[in-house]
Amino acid sequence: MNSISETYRPADLCEVHLTDTFWSKYTDLVREVVLPYQWKVLNDQEPGAPESHAVRNFRIAAGLESGEFYGEVFQDSDLAKWIEAASYTLAARKDEELESLIEEVIGLIEAAQQENGYLDTYFTIGRQDKEWTNLYECHEMYCMGHMIEAAVAYYKATGRRRFLDIMCRCADHISDCFGPEEGKMRGYPGHQELELALARLYEATGEKKYLELSRYFLKERGKAPNYFIREWETSRQRRTFKTGELTERPDLYYDQSHCPVAEQKEAVGHAVRAVYMYSAMADVAGKTGDEELFRTCRTLWENVTARQMYITGAVGATHQGEAFTFDYDLPNETAYAETCASVGLILFAARMQRIDMDGRYADVIERVLYNTVLASIAEGGKHYFYVNPQEMWPEASEKNPDRKHIRGSRQEWFGCACCPPNIARLLASLQKYVCSTDGRTLYLHLYLSGDLDIPAGNGKYSVKVRRQSPWSGITEIRVDGVPEGKGQIALRIPGWCREWSVRINDRIQEADVQKGYLYLKGVLPEDSIRLQFDMTPGLIQADPRVRADAGKAAVQMGPFVYCLEETDNGDNLSALRIDADTAFEKQTDAGLSDEVPMIIYNGYRTEEWPEGESLYRPYERREKRAVLKAVPYFLWGNRHPGEMQIWTRI
Amino acid sequence: MNSISETYRPADLCEVHLTDTFWSKYTDLVREVVLPYQWKVLNDQEPGAPESHAVRNFRIAAGLESGEFYGEVFQDSDLAKWIEAASYTLAARKDEELESLIEEVIGLIEAAQQENGYLDTYFTIGRQDKEWTNLYECHEMYCMGHMIEAAVAYYKATGRRRFLDIMCRCADHISDCFGPEEGKMRGYPGHQELELALARLYEATGEKKYLELSRYFLKERGKAPNYFIREWETSRQRRTFKTGELTERPDLYYDQSHCPVAEQKEAVGHAVRAVYMYSAMADVAGKTGDEELFRTCRTLWENVTARQMYITGAVGATHQGEAFTFDYDLPNETAYAETCASVGLILFAARMQRIDMDGRYADVIERVLYNTVLASIAEGGKHYFYVNPQEMWPEASEKNPDRKHIRGSRQEWFGCACCPPNIARLLASLQKYVCSTDGRTLYLHLYLSGDLDIPAGNGKYSVKVRRQSPWSGITEIRVDGVPEGKGQIALRIPGWCREWSVRINDRIQEADVQKGYLYLKGVLPEDSIRLQFDMTPGLIQADPRVRADAGKAAVQMGPFVYCLEETDNGDNLSALRIDADTAFEKQTDAGLSDEVPMIIYNGYRTEEWPEGESLYRPYERREKRAVLKAVPYFLWGNRHPGEMQIWTRI
Repeated sequence: MNSISETYRPADLCEVHLTDTFWSKYTDLVREVVLPYQWKVLNDQEPGAPESHAVRNFRIAAGLESGEFYGEVFQDSDLAKWIEAASYTLAARKDEELESLIEEVIGLIEAAQQENGYLDTYFTIGRQDKEWTNLYECHEMYCMGHMIEAAVAYYKATGRRRFLDIMCRCADHISDCFGPEEGKMRGYPGHQELELALARLYEATGEKKYLELSRYFLKERGKAPNYFIREWETSRQRRTFKTGELTERPDLYYDQSHCPVAEQKEAVGHAVRAVYMYSAMADVAGKTGDEELFRTCRTLWENVTARQMYITGAVGATHQGEAFTFDYDLPNETAYAETCASVGLILFAARMQRIDMDGRYADVIERVLYNTVLASIAEGGKHYFYVNPQEMWPEASEKNPDRKHIRGSRQEWFGCACCPPNIARLLASLQKYVCSTDGRTLYLHLYLSGDLDIPAGNGKYSVKVRRQSPWSGITEIRVDGVPEGKGQIALRIPGWCREWSVRINDRIQEADVQKGYLYLKGVLPEDSIRLQFDMTPGLIQADPRVRADAGKAAVQMGPFVYCLEETDNGDNLSALRIDADTAFEKQTDAGLSDEVPMIIYNGYRTEEWPEGESLYRPYERREKRAVLKAVPYFLWGNRHPGEMQIWTRI
Repeated sequence: MNSISETYRPADLCEVHLTDTFWSKYTDLVREVVLPYQWKVLNDQEPGAPESHAVRNFRIAAGLESGEFYGEVFQDSDLAKWIEAASYTLAARKDEELESLIEEVIGLIEAAQQENGYLDTYFTIGRQDKEWTNLYECHEMYCMGHMIEAAVAYYKATGRRRFLDIMCRCADHISDCFGPEEGKMRGYPGHQELELALARLYEATGEKKYLELSRYFLKERGKAPNYFIREWETSRQRRTFKTGELTERPDLYYDQSHCPVAEQKEAVGHAVRAVYMYSAMADVAGKTGDEELFRTCRTLWENVTARQMYITGAVGATHQGEAFTFDYDLPNETAYAETCASVGLILFAARMQRIDMDGRYADVIERVLYNTVLASIAEGGKHYFYVNPQEMWPEASEKNPDRKHIRGSRQEWFGCACCPPNIARLLASLQKYVCSTDGRTLYLHLYLSGDLDIPAGNGKYSVKVRRQSPWSGITEIRVDGVPEGKGQIALRIPGWCREWSVRINDRIQEADVQKGYLYLKGVLPEDSIRLQFDMTPGLIQADPRVRADAGKAAVQMGPFVYCLEETDNGDNLSALRIDADTAFEKQTDAGLSDEVPMIIYNGYRTEEWPEGESLYRPYERREKRAVLKAVPYFLWGNRHPGEMQIWTRI
């Protein structure tokens, strides 16, 4: 492998002005509905929502109010993610009211910060003697990490340094406490997040020590003797502060400290922790040129995306520990598939793409965005899935405790409210995932409509991308300017796309696809590129080692995975079988929002048995013809509650 | 419905002398291996087995030794079940050594019994002030129930009354404490068992008050306001004595006290509790002529066997609460399917059969015996399944916590050792399930080889039943005597049997089958009956509402459900598909024990994808022909550890 580096710079938020009607519905939702709503929740001003207390915790820590800490040990991170998302919307569009709201919160954060830079309200409110004593469970570095990400986002959006300086002081304090040097603690975060935040802080400030600290945390993790075990052994009688229960012996697989990070080959344990860590690993590998670490990232990327990822881009097969299980174990009925884990997978993909320009990273980003991310947020924007069902049988969720975590309707907010603000910050920063450049070539990943002004070399690319909708398959790209008179544009050909055509100024262009990108050389200003992807719906199968999907197929159109719902197909979806020779018909007037096409195809339904038949009887295939009607997975559960299934027998 | 009663008396143990070579292997095992082994375990004399302490608890309670109680709150029941099983073997064959051993234990039990008749070592050892204060969790009536069953079994085997008298005193004490009368507690058992034991005590003694007490417990259960909730509310700060943890609010579905028993229509909650209760309900219905209660039994029977029973006769779909879930929810991968629950289902079936002569009861008994019961005990007799896997993927059991309760190899003994002694007492009393009589007709249910001497009317049936093996399908019945010169024999035609023939003295006999029985009128002494069942293997399907089995079939031959094992078919059994037009070949020299035939048939195997293929790709059916080799489910896991599956795609 050649020496590695972060060759491909993703667009800054301010370099991309999105005009995509499909996505702006969601990004507008974030700005107009989600952020104001979340702000109310964080301030306990939303009637009906469970108590958050997040802002009050800061007021108490700042001495502005008296009271007790309330919430999860990671309650601070809800506020941090909100500031991060709000900052992204500021980068896209100035909003003085929002800005002054954030300034006010920053003042609160500053007041809650301790003299030495420490910032975590859970400990500051009455538990200062316990700081850093339970890294395994207590999330203080996780919260500080999210706050650092928020500070970087706010700094990049506004140019104001105050919050950044606050969080630099916090990072400096962490650096004073942890590290390989004599007298420092050799610990690392129980929930990875700070590692990637420090890499962003390094990017924003140029201060190498933040990158070094991130690198230290990653290199130290999982070394023997294990820090968390020592922590647990030396304070065995200590209890988790919140519940008053005895701390259990740490599960090292759970937080990926079972062996040194560089030796990990399979994704295990808590899925969000895992993908956040892999993201930080890619950051550090790219920024330090660490080839070994990058090889590990590649191995883990392959493991996650080629062996442990649902067709919707969801990851984490089990509810127990919200965790990865093992290769090809992707049960549909009991899937956990947490929204945050998929958001983390996008973070990981984007970092890999900085080092290695390969279409498979954007393939995964696209898969996650158009399926899991969109599905997790209700059309109204105020209801969310935390767990993303890959199959839904309402009666089973109610009556079989093994499936009780699978819910058919999105919820308002959660006791553990990690997912909604995570979706908000992702949707508010979609611009980051649209294109990159290596200074010479402009790489287009996702064909969201928008105006791109991307500095490259000594000039910049000015490009207008227009598409009708994500299911039209047609993108028009108008080149207004290229650096140094002649440019190169690389167009991603999605992994799902079997046929495509590219015309430049109405002439068909022949070009090879290399690692998922079609390279157009000699692009000139005023060039007009028309890209057409075949959007014929088709059947997809899973690797035969995925037992849960054996003998089954899913329907996909473009990046959209489709599913069957009870409301269109009757109950007992397991009785349906796809006719392998079926044609597919798109029905755009099916009454779904945004004129999303429904897909109609042929199949069979097993005939019901007469009442009174015994449960088991001699085999005889008795089916009748059936018309199957599929809707995009991301829209499921927005009409009537009922069954849903992605994989159907064939 | 006509008025009901226990019209059909099952054979007493002493009326049937079994000579069946297939079953005697197991019943000999019980006498020669299991009982001596269990005795050692109960006495903590078996190196390697976890501590039982069951006998020591009695010694301590009797004041013969000092020490603390050790074990589960229901540890006493292990000893009780052992005595019950040992007594059954005594009924079949005199054994003075065993008898004196039991006599010694009875002495111990008598010494451990309190003055007032109370008998439960968990409470007697240092917790006498807490007797009857936590019926929901503490199993004291459950243990006394098993001890009553043991006493009845010993009395019937030996005619000795001492133990029976001890347990009558105990039952009298319970009757003094509980009942509808002023001043008595209105409670009932947290784990049903005493209810059916009291019915047996009534049978053995003729004392109506025991039947009345059983009836009271059943009628009181689930009445509002709920006893367990009141118990919990009035002592909310009380803790479960064993763990020191706060008692959780009782889950009334768990122990079937969510509504009055007579109103229950679906099997819910802990499966063993449920089937034990249904058994007692049938007892009380039959003995008191309670038609309403019997209708409830019928409804519950239908619910369990036509909607919630695995093809192996196993019940209880979820590990969580070891419980029934709901209609047609029979997931294979996560099935709990506890052995004890199937033993209880046999108890229920046998009681229903006393009232209602219908072949479906014996159909279920046979299904459970030849599949779940036999599978749960290893060939050597010292290893048992507590949970009976309906599908096995070893890596999933290891790495997916949702499946960790599914084990591929039988274990020596269990921390909670309810199942092994339950199997022992069942196998030691197989005679009970072979035939019944209404005083006029002899009903043959299971065609185990044996000599039957069944009093009926003013005479008796003397009949010799001979079959080669359970898979020969041929049974010869030699009639040596009938009551009053001319008898009627009803032969059960099993539900699985599609074709059969009956010859009397070599003449083909035409006769109608009524409710699963073929009635032969005018049977004379010296008649020779030859019954032949078609044992051609065939494919079975489940009701299409069983989603887990949709598009799949199982192979069955006679009563034996077959399964595929990795050792014969390679790994990834989910990649196999049955050719629906296949023929079946029996291979009797396949090296399985007892010359059990393996079944060979045609199918397909999905071709593997080349390494490096993505996880999802366009659908294309790529299969190669495969020969499938199935073994009886009851033998699975006796060779190499590996995958197992009953249901295969078709």
